Amino acid sequence: LDHEAGAAAAGAMDGKVKPLGSLGQLETLAARLAGIQATTEPHVEAPAVVICAGDHGITATGVSAYPQEVTALMLGGFAAGTAAVGVLAREAGIRLLVADLGVIQAPVIESGQNVVLDRRVRAGTANSLEGPAMTLAQAQQAVAHGVGLADLLIDDGADLIGLGEMGIGNTTAASALTASLLDRDPARVTGPGTGVTGEALTAKIAAVDAVLRRHGDLDDPWQILAAVGGLEIAALTGVVLRCAARRVPVLLDGFVATAAALVAWRIEPRSADAMIAATLSPEPGHAVQLEALGLEPVLRLGMRLGEGSGAALAVPILRSAAAVLRDMGSFADLGLADEKPTA
Amino acid sequence: LDHEAGAAAAGAMDGKVKPLGSLGQLETLAARLAGIQATTEPHVEAPAVVICAGDHGITATGVSAYPQEVTALMLGGFAAGTAAVGVLAREAGIRLLVADLGVIQAPVIESGQNVVLDRRVRAGTANSLEGPAMTLAQAQQAVAHGVGLADLLIDDGADLIGLGEMGIGNTTAASALTASLLDRDPARVTGPGTGVTGEALTAKIAAVDAVLRRHGDLDDPWQILAAVGGLEIAALTGVVLRCAARRVPVLLDGFVATAAALVAWRIEPRSADAMIAATLSPEPGHAVQLEALGLEPVLRLGMRLGEGSGAALAVPILRSAAAVLRDMGSFADLGLADEKPTA
Repeated sequence: LDHEAGAAAAGAMDGKVKPLGSLGQLETLAARLAGIQATTEPHVEAPAVVICAGDHGITATGVSAYPQEVTALMLGGFAAGTAAVGVLAREAGIRLLVADLGVIQAPVIESGQNVVLDRRVRAGTANSLEGPAMTLAQAQQAVAHGVGLADLLIDDGADLIGLGEMGIGNTTAASALTASLLDRDPARVTGPGTGVTGEALTAKIAAVDAVLRRHGDLDDPWQILAAVGGLEIAALTGVVLRCAARRVPVLLDGFVATAAALVAWRIEPRSADAMIAATLSPEPGHAVQLEALGLEPVLRLGMRLGEGSGAALAVPILRSAAAVLRDMGSFADLGLADEKPTA
Repeated sequence: LDHEAGAAAAGAMDGKVKPLGSLGQLETLAARLAGIQATTEPHVEAPAVVICAGDHGITATGVSAYPQEVTALMLGGFAAGTAAVGVLAREAGIRLLVADLGVIQAPVIESGQNVVLDRRVRAGTANSLEGPAMTLAQAQQAVAHGVGLADLLIDDGADLIGLGEMGIGNTTAASALTASLLDRDPARVTGPGTGVTGEALTAKIAAVDAVLRRHGDLDDPWQILAAVGGLEIAALTGVVLRCAARRVPVLLDGFVATAAALVAWRIEPRSADAMIAATLSPEPGHAVQLEALGLEPVLRLGMRLGEGSGAALAVPILRSAAAVLRDMGSFADLGLADEKPTA
């Protein structure tokens, strides 16, 4: 974070023709964009959302309301542009990049549809109740793919990147990651996901608990990622790390994307400086994650779909924050530098 | 509200390829747009924000951090497009319409700037501590101007109208209106406005209290509007009434705009059906108003600038809600009507 640029942007915001602080979080978002991009003129002109997909062996344990085949089916929806994130991205002028990190069955994309990049590491993870979800080498490979996806977008001009994910069973992996990385009780950070309630939710919490006991006391974030994580989560961790290294703001989405951000933060604590939280999910672990990362969400609309939908919806607000800093008139423009009240 | 269209839209939303309810408030917003517009295909294709400005005699009592001349100065900023709302409206493709309902000095608009419509009723209100802010006839005339402004926009194709206002001293008038219309303690619904704190805030609360005692127990919303309201507030009341009558969603802004909506609701209770709350202001009376109207805000960013800035910032979210309902794929499209879980 470039504190000098951030402070200069905040000062410029204070000089705008409005009562001090009256644009609320829009002002702090503009200053944060400035600090991340290391400029007093932050910009959101070429936003992108990268969606990583992968399947999860733990679905065999019945943790999700949907069958595993839905992951590949949703990839088809991303390619066709008919998924929620596709609609929201079109409305907001956001580039979508979709990558298959390892769904069970590689999707068949018809001609005329958007491409799904093949970044397959393996056909879904193993069941983490029975062993590591993947090997350390596979986790590293998936992270490296994420780094490459970020580079691809940034080299092509992207100046803000949102995280999206798809993978039936991945809220279970995200709960295991969150509980392990933050040392929390599984019951505190495990929720309905796509919609499991009652006894099914109790069983999901028990599964997360069993996964954690199965793998013992792990502390290294790479080990934790390989043992209980997911291929798409690992790739998003790579996206976060690369965005932070290249001073590109990274817009988190819901609970699963933020689990990837947690891994990145544990690998490189300063990566949190590049993060902006798009939404607050009702998934109970999300508030826990955001608090650990020190982030305030932009939107509080009760969205819990994932797939980058929250990130896409928040982009116009970030674009507006940058525009206010760039285009709004100041008291100085009016020759009224002294009329600004100090309240 | 067309409950049939609203229910049909909600049903269509449930059939989209996503877990039930997973888009949160975006889903209820889409259904509400459908209910207001009486169509299962709601649209936000030609949004507008109408800004009404007027001055307030009660500023003589020192209730604001700014001098009264700032109202006309800000009208210049709206004309030039350099005010916050101008920037936000440009970013979101929103038409801005600005009307002078009675600032002390009519603004001088340079050529090449946006026009400010002359809808002057009188040069500012009288000090409501000393007598009625305006006559009943003047309040009616200002409301009629608002009706005309809404007609102008709707006849020109506007399919959603946001409320904006400018008037130094108008949070004091809004507090008096809110306390009177909802029978609340002035201390509960009077806040910093542009930034008065400490003793100055105590004095502002005392002024609102004195205004209410000065005018006795009024119950008729027209009488209350004339006694303690404002010219720009009255005009926005007219905008709300006309939007509701013509089935055009009306997007509230902050505390002052919502005071105008309260007056409209007291005149015609069904007008609340056409309202959508854009933001939650930290101004303490705003939550009280929204609760009375039964509205949940779209944004919770701590914005308290007014001038339509919150409404403008919420427009992309409403546009997205309509787009999801229109463009997102359904389980039926995939031949998967039976796979939708009921959780």
